[in-house]
Amino acid sequence: MLHPTRDQIDLVDVMAAIGHPVRAEIVRRLAASGQEEFCGSILPGVPKSTLTNHWRVLRESGVICQRPEGRKLYIRLRREDLDERFPGLLDLIVLEGSRAPSP
Amino acid sequence: MLHPTRDQIDLVDVMAAIGHPVRAEIVRRLAASGQEEFCGSILPGVPKSTLTNHWRVLRESGVICQRPEGRKLYIRLRREDLDERFPGLLDLIVLEGSRAPSP
Repeated sequence: MLHPTRDQIDLVDVMAAIGHPVRAEIVRRLAASGQEEFCGSILPGVPKSTLTNHWRVLRESGVICQRPEGRKLYIRLRREDLDERFPGLLDLIVLEGSRAPSP
Repeated sequence: MLHPTRDQIDLVDVMAAIGHPVRAEIVRRLAASGQEEFCGSILPGVPKSTLTNHWRVLRESGVICQRPEGRKLYIRLRREDLDERFPGLLDLIVLEGSRAPSP
């Protein structure tokens, strides 16, 4: 399970990853939680097969870390990496989420 | 030719629009120019049919304004609208463009 290093994270990839309503909502929930979450608990209403694709897009772009533990998968927002590389970007997403209704 | 109002611009749509290497480069060139440009002069190496789709995505998300004049189309970055709605976002894209090689 590959994760880009902090320096490999590409802004265009990050924007493409977050530029989807379900993935934007995942980012907002992980930002609000501030900690690692069990992947099944983040958006319980969305089918697992749909989420699997979203986890991959978010991971490969460097937005999240995935950590398998037994048969479970844990997800964490790469907040420090993103804040260091693209200051203010996550804040915009979180702020905008509190303005607009959730999908 | 519909353009969203400033208040209708959605951050997730904007991210999806800019989350593509060609469209990110268009945004950088328009930001560098700071003025309205003839659409054929922005990325002369890219086929017109490809660009037509990119103009549409950028316009419908609120990133650019298009203005037809005779048979020509003029393009402008909605810098003020985007800076007001999502402060710092365009600066990140411009800054990152000067870090990474152009596509």
